[in-house]
Amino acid sequence: MKLTNEQSKEIKEQQSQENKTKRVTAPELEKVLYEAIPILDHGFIRVIDYMGDDTSIVQAARVSYGKGTKKVSTDSGLIKYLMRHWHSTPFEMCEIKYHVKLPIFIARQWIRHRTANVNEYSARYSILDKEFYLPSPEHLATQSQSNRQGRGEVLEGEKAKKVLDLLRGDAEQTYKNYEIMLNEKYDGSLIDTKASGLARELARMNLTLNTYTQWYWKTDLLNLMNFLRLRADHHAQYEIRAYADVMLDTLKKWVPITYDAFMDYRVGGTEVSSKGKKLIKKLINGEEISIEQSGLSKREWNELMETFNIKEKLI
Amino acid sequence: MKLTNEQSKEIKEQQSQENKTKRVTAPELEKVLYEAIPILDHGFIRVIDYMGDDTSIVQAARVSYGKGTKKVSTDSGLIKYLMRHWHSTPFEMCEIKYHVKLPIFIARQWIRHRTANVNEYSARYSILDKEFYLPSPEHLATQSQSNRQGRGEVLEGEKAKKVLDLLRGDAEQTYKNYEIMLNEKYDGSLIDTKASGLARELARMNLTLNTYTQWYWKTDLLNLMNFLRLRADHHAQYEIRAYADVMLDTLKKWVPITYDAFMDYRVGGTEVSSKGKKLIKKLINGEEISIEQSGLSKREWNELMETFNIKEKLI
Amino acid sequence: MKLTNEQSKEIKEQQSQENKTKRVTAPELEKVLYEAIPILDHGFIRVIDYMGDDTSIVQAARVSYGKGTKKVSTDSGLIKYLMRHWHSTPFEMCEIKYHVKLPIFIARQWIRHRTANVNEYSARYSILDKEFYLPSPEHLATQSQSNRQGRGEVLEGEKAKKVLDLLRGDAEQTYKNYEIMLNEKYDGSLIDTKASGLARELARMNLTLNTYTQWYWKTDLLNLMNFLRLRADHHAQYEIRAYADVMLDTLKKWVPITYDAFMDYRVGGTEVSSKGKKLIKKLINGEEISIEQSGLSKREWNELMETFNIKEKLI
Amino acid sequence: MKLTNEQSKEIKEQQSQENKTKRVTAPELEKVLYEAIPILDHGFIRVIDYMGDDTSIVQAARVSYGKGTKKVSTDSGLIKYLMRHWHSTPFEMCEIKYHVKLPIFIARQWIRHRTANVNEYSARYSILDKEFYLPSPEHLATQSQSNRQGRGEVLEGEKAKKVLDLLRGDAEQTYKNYEIMLNEKYDGSLIDTKASGLARELARMNLTLNTYTQWYWKTDLLNLMNFLRLRADHHAQYEIRAYADVMLDTLKKWVPITYDAFMDYRVGGTEVSSKGKKLIKKLINGEEISIEQSGLSKREWNELMETFNIKEKLI
Repeated sequence: MKLTNEQSKEIKEQQSQENKTKRVTAPELEKVLYEAIPILDHGFIRVIDYMGDDTSIVQAARVSYGKGTKKVSTDSGLIKYLMRHWHSTPFEMCEIKYHVKLPIFIARQWIRHRTANVNEYSARYSILDKEFYLPSPEHLATQSQSNRQGRGEVLEGEKAKKVLDLLRGDAEQTYKNYEIMLNEKYDGSLIDTKASGLARELARMNLTLNTYTQWYWKTDLLNLMNFLRLRADHHAQYEIRAYADVMLDTLKKWVPITYDAFMDYRVGGTEVSSKGKKLIKKLINGEEISIEQSGLSKREWNELMETFNIKEKLI
Repeated sequence: MKLTNEQSKEIKEQQSQENKTKRVTAPELEKVLYEAIPILDHGFIRVIDYMGDDTSIVQAARVSYGKGTKKVSTDSGLIKYLMRHWHSTPFEMCEIKYHVKLPIFIARQWIRHRTANVNEYSARYSILDKEFYLPSPEHLATQSQSNRQGRGEVLEGEKAKKVLDLLRGDAEQTYKNYEIMLNEKYDGSLIDTKASGLARELARMNLTLNTYTQWYWKTDLLNLMNFLRLRADHHAQYEIRAYADVMLDTLKKWVPITYDAFMDYRVGGTEVSSKGKKLIKKLINGEEISIEQSGLSKREWNELMETFNIKEKLI
Repeated sequence: MKLTNEQSKEIKEQQSQENKTKRVTAPELEKVLYEAIPILDHGFIRVIDYMGDDTSIVQAARVSYGKGTKKVSTDSGLIKYLMRHWHSTPFEMCEIKYHVKLPIFIARQWIRHRTANVNEYSARYSILDKEFYLPSPEHLATQSQSNRQGRGEVLEGEKAKKVLDLLRGDAEQTYKNYEIMLNEKYDGSLIDTKASGLARELARMNLTLNTYTQWYWKTDLLNLMNFLRLRADHHAQYEIRAYADVMLDTLKKWVPITYDAFMDYRVGGTEVSSKGKKLIKKLINGEEISIEQSGLSKREWNELMETFNIKEKLI
Repeated sequence: MKLTNEQSKEIKEQQSQENKTKRVTAPELEKVLYEAIPILDHGFIRVIDYMGDDTSIVQAARVSYGKGTKKVSTDSGLIKYLMRHWHSTPFEMCEIKYHVKLPIFIARQWIRHRTANVNEYSARYSILDKEFYLPSPEHLATQSQSNRQGRGEVLEGEKAKKVLDLLRGDAEQTYKNYEIMLNEKYDGSLIDTKASGLARELARMNLTLNTYTQWYWKTDLLNLMNFLRLRADHHAQYEIRAYADVMLDTLKKWVPITYDAFMDYRVGGTEVSSKGKKLIKKLINGEEISIEQSGLSKREWNELMETFNIKEKLI
């Protein structure tokens, strides 16, 4: 991640603000406000603004006149209760806004989360930065054989090098031709001062999907957790997980009590089906079980055995 | 509006907070933060929290690294442009949260605005306050003859008195029977210490629709303006307009540039249909027109004449 | 539930339609289309329209050109997989529309599900029917002592009678005064032909919350299941559960494969927290456990013991 | 647009369905159901399903028991009234589902309309078709000088040829390298039978933004019109307008009365600001006006003059 001098200066100016407010604040999150936290090779996440803290959840759940909190232990108990029983609306009472730089193919996954507000850098209006994502070698993996949406083994050195050469070569060439079509360099200088370039809204179609874009993205705490539950999961593609992991850290700084409940009940938790419940009851009672009797499919059976680390007592 | 001592104390405690933040602030809005602004006979609106200001809109529209504002005049021009051309997403980047006390029949209109977050006081869980809305005499009007959704003349003194007596009498009686069924007074004391009361989730059904409820309501700036455009309009029922008018004032304190653009382009503006456009062109050219030629219905014709205050030149 | 002759006739006319379509159909649901299924004392649910069936989910998940289904067993396997792994978007590809008559206090719970489309009968515009909900004696229960949102014992005969008398008396009186204020009977006849009545938008505030209203309510299959998971649950208030139970039945007629998966993975399933998982692993291994070691709160511990029907091996 | 034999066969099978239903149908839309209507060089739109027709809007607005329509003229009047006064919820009672093939850079604009349901072909899971968008020469335009988001003159023959060569060359090369990295041809055959390929979720990042993708997209009538108002507008990029124009035609076949009202009040209509209203009143009265007195910015003034085709009487 490289910031221009002007960008660094603008960020510093924001960080040096010291305003007074009667609103609740999240002191740990304030410390990293506006900071560009690097992700992947050219991406970043910046927390731009937030509204509310752990006490706001309690306040709304109680529809109270005051801060809605007498004791931290009471608040913690209530937040855990709300999380456990899917009382979702109090968590919607907190809001956060990020500035994110990310590859377009990841942006396309991200945008599927609809309950959020987005302003993206417009390639109809402006020229995109000359930056594209190249995986580091340890993230270059083969197609998984068992999971059509997943990765298998890491590529060996020579093969990895070849892939990176192709990715880099194509990204550089398509970007160079983007500039030629625009008749304009990424720094704004004209190539042929007498000619006019192709419309930006057209030229952009020549760029590859690993080109970086950026946006402002704002969501409430509930939908942030929905996003993180899916995107910080090990089934998620590594590149979006890299963003989700950093966002998990900002969640912890912002609403530490909610973060703990989220990790316990959502991220670390699991769901058990009706058939799965019956099977677990039998296992606890020391009964023998078989796939056939359970009514589970092979795939579901394996998922359950893995989740609960069960190895024995099976027929 | 009457607050208990404890409620007043909790509000004062919130108002006396003085926190430091690097976030942008809206100084005029800070002045009224947490304050219970009275509406109708027992209702109020309190601004509990907010996120962003006018510069946040510009910042997001430009996807800028800094505050996104060099000069106020530039910001103002951009905000007007965005408003005029319905570029809606930058306005979603600001958020506000209210605590509202309001009659249930108004809450039922209000809740139809779905793009908002709500936590309502639960009458399954708690006993509702003994407060119900009684219109002041100047708002007691007859059914409009021309508009099935509107009001006509104000009721005369005797008739108004009779209506108020009925409303008050029924509200008091149904509340009294609510307490009897609950076997509990609104202050929490038991009526018959040896008996058990009806479940709260059932007893509440005996209350009338002018009983007050309260909620936390949070929305983004775009949806707040959508709400206000409909609810501060003269077609809206007076009782919800009373809330919208106070909210318009908080909008002005929060984002003054956006407020001006909103008043010019939305509240004070109008829409003209394709047929209406043709008609206006003719009027400007001094041509004579007739309803028949215009293709407008009688109703639409009248609406247009009224909007543009046209009285002459009609055939 | 009583329908007027005209209403019955209109419903019959709809049911006698026989149109041709190239769209997929749900034959079992077609059989009950438009029918007013009675709920509570005056309420009903009618399925008015629907879009898609089980194969539509598979078709969208595969983004296929055809019906997206080769074999029922394949479709079933895919739908179960999607349900188990919370792949939610394919379930959004089916849509259903209901006409519902329900008491206002239940409508206020229902409307909290925001991802739906609603058109409610307008009491600003029209006079509400003279119908109000009175619980049958077996549903008149005391306030639960252990659960502030729940019901306890059923009321004894005398007490139940008294409650019903109060509910009936107040509903009848407030409705009578509603008519007096309107100067109009519910059948549209004027009371005093020379006087004018109070505006409808005002008079309605005198009605009690058990008055029936009605609306058209449309949602997609995913959000219907979200609604049913909460509202057909035993924690839900009986009166809304009565509607949810009938809707569960229409779900089964509409998309039987999805219904089965929903019952297994959502309704009959459970969630286990991170701490709960550790505890279950120990139980399966025959280890002894204690609340203290588990890190669970008393309440959460009890919930877990109940879910898995565990009674032994505890220290 | 080229369909494989299997795709054509699947479409034909759907079109040959003849089911009976009690639901309302839209006979004109039925005629084109499932048909792949070609757009751009490789794209298409197919109507897959729909729910409701013009009478469904009236039915919901009236919360009626029957079809809610006595006479077409009455329905038409009500629909116009609802459209003119922004009564939006009855239009949400109809739903439509499309299968769309479109270039990725257009998909990225399209997806910004959040109130819709989407299932996109997954390039994590499958290999994308070897199809990319190349504009026809008459749509290759220079960057507009006056509008940073728009197009200017059409490129001359030689320049156009050069641009097309660059676009084609880069798309073909990046696709070829995509296959090499995958170690798999687009038809599924392996390149090196002994080697394993790069994970699909990674290889896709090498493709250019004019590569075609496809999705199922479902929305209600209100949000379809919101989409079309923006995307069939002359400010919209040509490539998305091409889709919107075809969708406008399906709108007409589906709900002809609503289509007429939409064209009159939305597409052909305009908005006038508070200041604009004052200015028009003066023009109608034959008064002289100047920009300065109007309070309008130069830009807004020009927009208004253009909208109402005003050329005279200006100071």
